[in-house]
Amino acid sequence: MNFGAAFNVLGALLMVEGAFLMPPLLYAVCHGEGSTKAFIIAMALALIVGALLFFMPRKEERIRGRDGLFIVAVGWIVASLLGAVPIYLGGGTPNYIDALFETVSGFTTTGASVIPNVEAIDKSIVLWRSMTHWIGGMGILVFTLALLPRVGTNGFRIFKAETPGPVAGKVEPRMKDTAKALYKIYLFITVVLFVLLYFAGMNVFDAVIHTLGVVGTGGFSSHANSCAAYIDNSAILIIMSVFMVICGTNFSLYSRAVGGHLREMFLDEEYRLYLKILGGAVVLIALNLVLSNEMTVGLGLRESLFQVTSIISTSGFASSDYDQWPGFSKCILLALYFFGSCAGSTAGGMKMIRILVLWKIVKREIFKSIHPNAIMPIRINGKIVEDQVIFGIVAFICVYIILLAVSTALTATSGVDFLTAFSGCLTCLSNVGPGFSGVGPTNTFVEFAPGYKLLFSSLMLMGRLEFFTILALFAPQRGHRYMN
Amino acid sequence: MNFGAAFNVLGALLMVEGAFLMPPLLYAVCHGEGSTKAFIIAMALALIVGALLFFMPRKEERIRGRDGLFIVAVGWIVASLLGAVPIYLGGGTPNYIDALFETVSGFTTTGASVIPNVEAIDKSIVLWRSMTHWIGGMGILVFTLALLPRVGTNGFRIFKAETPGPVAGKVEPRMKDTAKALYKIYLFITVVLFVLLYFAGMNVFDAVIHTLGVVGTGGFSSHANSCAAYIDNSAILIIMSVFMVICGTNFSLYSRAVGGHLREMFLDEEYRLYLKILGGAVVLIALNLVLSNEMTVGLGLRESLFQVTSIISTSGFASSDYDQWPGFSKCILLALYFFGSCAGSTAGGMKMIRILVLWKIVKREIFKSIHPNAIMPIRINGKIVEDQVIFGIVAFICVYIILLAVSTALTATSGVDFLTAFSGCLTCLSNVGPGFSGVGPTNTFVEFAPGYKLLFSSLMLMGRLEFFTILALFAPQRGHRYMN
Repeated sequence: MNFGAAFNVLGALLMVEGAFLMPPLLYAVCHGEGSTKAFIIAMALALIVGALLFFMPRKEERIRGRDGLFIVAVGWIVASLLGAVPIYLGGGTPNYIDALFETVSGFTTTGASVIPNVEAIDKSIVLWRSMTHWIGGMGILVFTLALLPRVGTNGFRIFKAETPGPVAGKVEPRMKDTAKALYKIYLFITVVLFVLLYFAGMNVFDAVIHTLGVVGTGGFSSHANSCAAYIDNSAILIIMSVFMVICGTNFSLYSRAVGGHLREMFLDEEYRLYLKILGGAVVLIALNLVLSNEMTVGLGLRESLFQVTSIISTSGFASSDYDQWPGFSKCILLALYFFGSCAGSTAGGMKMIRILVLWKIVKREIFKSIHPNAIMPIRINGKIVEDQVIFGIVAFICVYIILLAVSTALTATSGVDFLTAFSGCLTCLSNVGPGFSGVGPTNTFVEFAPGYKLLFSSLMLMGRLEFFTILALFAPQRGHRYMN
Repeated sequence: MNFGAAFNVLGALLMVEGAFLMPPLLYAVCHGEGSTKAFIIAMALALIVGALLFFMPRKEERIRGRDGLFIVAVGWIVASLLGAVPIYLGGGTPNYIDALFETVSGFTTTGASVIPNVEAIDKSIVLWRSMTHWIGGMGILVFTLALLPRVGTNGFRIFKAETPGPVAGKVEPRMKDTAKALYKIYLFITVVLFVLLYFAGMNVFDAVIHTLGVVGTGGFSSHANSCAAYIDNSAILIIMSVFMVICGTNFSLYSRAVGGHLREMFLDEEYRLYLKILGGAVVLIALNLVLSNEMTVGLGLRESLFQVTSIISTSGFASSDYDQWPGFSKCILLALYFFGSCAGSTAGGMKMIRILVLWKIVKREIFKSIHPNAIMPIRINGKIVEDQVIFGIVAFICVYIILLAVSTALTATSGVDFLTAFSGCLTCLSNVGPGFSGVGPTNTFVEFAPGYKLLFSSLMLMGRLEFFTILALFAPQRGHRYMN
């Protein structure tokens, strides 16, 4: 393990986080909020510890396989530990564990909360909380690396460990350029959405908060009842829906589209599946709402669109209490919790590309049960998917299900009902936010004992880093005995 | 399609089923039960239609790929359609759909019921219902084939389509001998269990019913409250537990053990995993029951042992209302619903061998995330598992989950709660019997509308035949367009 290089990157990360604390600090100062001191302390802590780590002497620059994983996993934990400081000190939560839950939920773009009444706490805290979504959305570490002057191909191992989705091959040669291009798009979307929300009727503060939440596919709102506050403003809800769809898309498609390959976007198999599932879910749920809950077609479609896009993009905003919707709609939403959106987006979940590969395997097996000797490679966008990649996907899905099952059983020891435990763990693992029943959109995770909150926090982290980054840390170095 | 050969086998199947109707008919006659007429009608129907089909002229003997699948799928449906006749005519159920549900549940060794009070109907009906478990347990079609004089290697395609588990390669060369050897073991276990249950205190009728239910891993009881009737007789519950474990084991291991290879059995990786999961679940649930429900250690262990073995073997007997157990225990039981027991047993579920292969893939991927260039084939019992087999397993698990998700959403339209819909579909797909909540061990499926009962029936069939047999019937003949 090259601790020197690891501490160096972690130091830079802390200093960047310290800089990000400036906007909420300024907000607190300008509005004379009590949390001013909390932000000053957190910022000082970030800058001092960060500088100490950054300037620690080191032997070599090279980051090896395991070191990259270590830096990513520890980096997210350290960033959360520090990010929780102002929330706790500023009175956002009654204890540090709650603040940590909230910060992990923020950085992982989950949006699950333990603050029952967000309107009662300092707005600077609310701002910081939503900023963690935006920072986490594109990966705070990639951000750090893109800013560091001396990063060349070295940083790739970190980038790969952090970027969601199974295929990251293309970005390797010019990682820094790619990161910069993606950030430009990210910033552009952020600005456009802010302007639209503002002109649709939100005040500046709310527009900022919901922009950060949508672009990071996080889901923290400035209202205790989430987007139910805008139930009478269809424009706002539809703008948010559209942008949640946009932010659930593979950002490299935008990067290609900007380069003049717009047609490629709509030929991309993953993107097409994403739109198909999204469209299918919207129609089915709207039908169900119109027929069972006697909504008008227009209202049914809007409600369905908002909730489907919110969950498939793993944002987790709620415009109404979907936990009260009919069972059929709830089952479809539950499936979307698993799916998530496209790889290479800011969303969580299993990702469409994996679902697509598995679906092609199923089709092939059904065909093979009649034609046993047929040889048919799996192709995505015309390119053969290697068996090695498929096994990675299979393992990913298995770990997903194992973690979900084990954590559900552990959560059940708290005495909550099955759906609360199951959807609570699922929503954390998929980085959505609210679940059903006891953790439904009108509830929070505040009632759970501290141990459960730590469990949920680790699920959010594992979901965000797609497991193997974290699991690999615990794997033995030598494998012959291990693999038998 | 070679309809001639197909009708020939189906005809033989119906005649065999007609012969199996003899014991319940004799019982009805001896006890002067009203259902006598029902059995005579059903038997006449089976023998006449069976003979007509059997002696229909045909061109050739050869059974091709798709024909084998067709015979198996249609065979199970025809056997169920006929088997339901005496149950309906004999007053077991108020309508034919209910009788069909009960018969499919019987033949597929599920044990889910729509008869709320089994003590109120004719005992000859109860006997027939339990006999369907025993007949279905080892595959009524294999039975038919083993009796047909002219079957050589021809029958293998049917055997393969019907035998649970991914690997059936070994039995090919001498299919008929293998079938006979397995039936000897099956009969031996049946006789031993009957004698033990009788001497442990059951009357002859109850001993027969519970023997048929355990050996077929079905779960129909002669008591409305299942095995809660024997709550004071630990001997009976423990004997049943042990035999449920025995019947969840791959029968070919017994066949090898009889041939002098007893040691092989305990070296078999699937069998070891089965015992480990079983043991682990028993201990965890017993602990949970002792700590949360204040049971004594002895009672906790016995209750846990009975319920774990009942569900992992997909029998579905209940010695108490486990739906009232603490959430942690219920989550573990729920996981067992998915697992099932060993391939090549009479049990349903995903089977241990598949879980084992997936687990090895996960371990390999975690290892590879540190050592990306390592080449490590997956081995079971020292033999390399080919990628083709692995893809078959992956597709199987995917279809399992897709069917579970879609059927749960459809069931939710009936207005039942999520856990009822989910566990109801799961228990049918895994051929267990009772589920949780509205379909828990103290309830039945009787409240559902006929459409839902047909849905559950088809889930039971698909679970029993492991999907591809049935799905392949709907797959197009030519695949190039289909696979893209």
